[in-house]
Amino acid sequence: MADTIEIGILFFPDVTQLDAMGPAQVLSRLPSARLHMIWKSREPVTTDCGFAVVPTTTFADCPQLDVICVPGGVGQVALMNDEETLGFLRRQAEAARYITSVCTGSLVLAAAGLLTGYRAACHWSVRDELTAFGAVPAAERVVRDRNRFSGGGVTAGIDFGLSLAAELAGERTAKAIQLMMEYDPHPPFDSGSPEKAGPELVALYRERTSGMMARRREENQRAAARVGASGTR
Amino acid sequence: MADTIEIGILFFPDVTQLDAMGPAQVLSRLPSARLHMIWKSREPVTTDCGFAVVPTTTFADCPQLDVICVPGGVGQVALMNDEETLGFLRRQAEAARYITSVCTGSLVLAAAGLLTGYRAACHWSVRDELTAFGAVPAAERVVRDRNRFSGGGVTAGIDFGLSLAAELAGERTAKAIQLMMEYDPHPPFDSGSPEKAGPELVALYRERTSGMMARRREENQRAAARVGASGTR
Repeated sequence: MADTIEIGILFFPDVTQLDAMGPAQVLSRLPSARLHMIWKSREPVTTDCGFAVVPTTTFADCPQLDVICVPGGVGQVALMNDEETLGFLRRQAEAARYITSVCTGSLVLAAAGLLTGYRAACHWSVRDELTAFGAVPAAERVVRDRNRFSGGGVTAGIDFGLSLAAELAGERTAKAIQLMMEYDPHPPFDSGSPEKAGPELVALYRERTSGMMARRREENQRAAARVGASGTR
Repeated sequence: MADTIEIGILFFPDVTQLDAMGPAQVLSRLPSARLHMIWKSREPVTTDCGFAVVPTTTFADCPQLDVICVPGGVGQVALMNDEETLGFLRRQAEAARYITSVCTGSLVLAAAGLLTGYRAACHWSVRDELTAFGAVPAAERVVRDRNRFSGGGVTAGIDFGLSLAAELAGERTAKAIQLMMEYDPHPPFDSGSPEKAGPELVALYRERTSGMMARRREENQRAAARVGASGTR
């Protein structure tokens, strides 16, 4: 029997649940995967969609992971300067085979000092803020740089998951999972990127999220100053 | 202020979580949506990926829904002849504006007698079994027939969700949600349908799922006999 692959997804309050659920669906189908949803305690964690998920393990009880994945969402902001979370990520990263993220989860990895000198994806709306951490933002759906894998915004987590599945278990297994998930996307509209959506919808997004984005920028900058002050890792 | 749109997703043991989470992510972003995750009790419900989700309401407490959505997965099998669940769906369907499903959830709607005479989508592997219920299986990613909307397997739930979002709140709103979710899919492989994956991967899927598929067929047939016996609704 193949060795178990320990896969852990950080699951925090106000996570954009699909950032996590796309990769969870893909990666849990790997033949010898064990999927962990990790948070500080095992109390249910409320997602951005209002419902709650029960973590399967905690920072204290989590085994050494082969893959650590950090999703994003509004809840990312509270993690940027949360030493308990950043410390957990750094400890896991020492021996993890792959250090990964979806959406704004890459900012959390960056805040832990884990993306300095690496290319990474992020949600389009906030991608540029990676530069303050010495990371190199990439406008791609899935980015690999050495053992860092990152996905762009929300639904990019599925493309990311399949790419990582192929890396972990081979292309045939990844393709079999894609078939099982009937992942042959046909979006009814073509507005999935700022370029395709056009300036009016981009402006609408910026306007609606301006309050949250201001808070995000502030916390990101505070974290970047800290990472800069402690030098590259 | 717009009236609240009550959106309910049936959330049952062994649900394929992404069947539910794709639409949940899309529909919870509608301006006046209230999303419910519904089951018999509010005890955490374990998904196919091992982690559990806490239902937000129960059959008994659920308000009249505008949209009822039934996802699929292995857990669908246990619902096919579960009168408590089928009764809940029938009661909600009397006044719901939209009766919807993702993946094998359409078989559950069919078992409740709610798809007789309707075209519907389903996971490719079991789509044909809809015919036993007097429904018309369609090999499409999103199918609309009057007030029935259905998505194909698993990830089709995102395409389904966006189509339903446009119906509920207009195309501009749906496009804004697509941009927020960065839904500009670029699958790393092209094996998301049986035609694209080819016979070898299809055979592998059939082989791996044969035990479950036999149980599924048996329960589906038992349900179909019951629906047939009680006449079309």
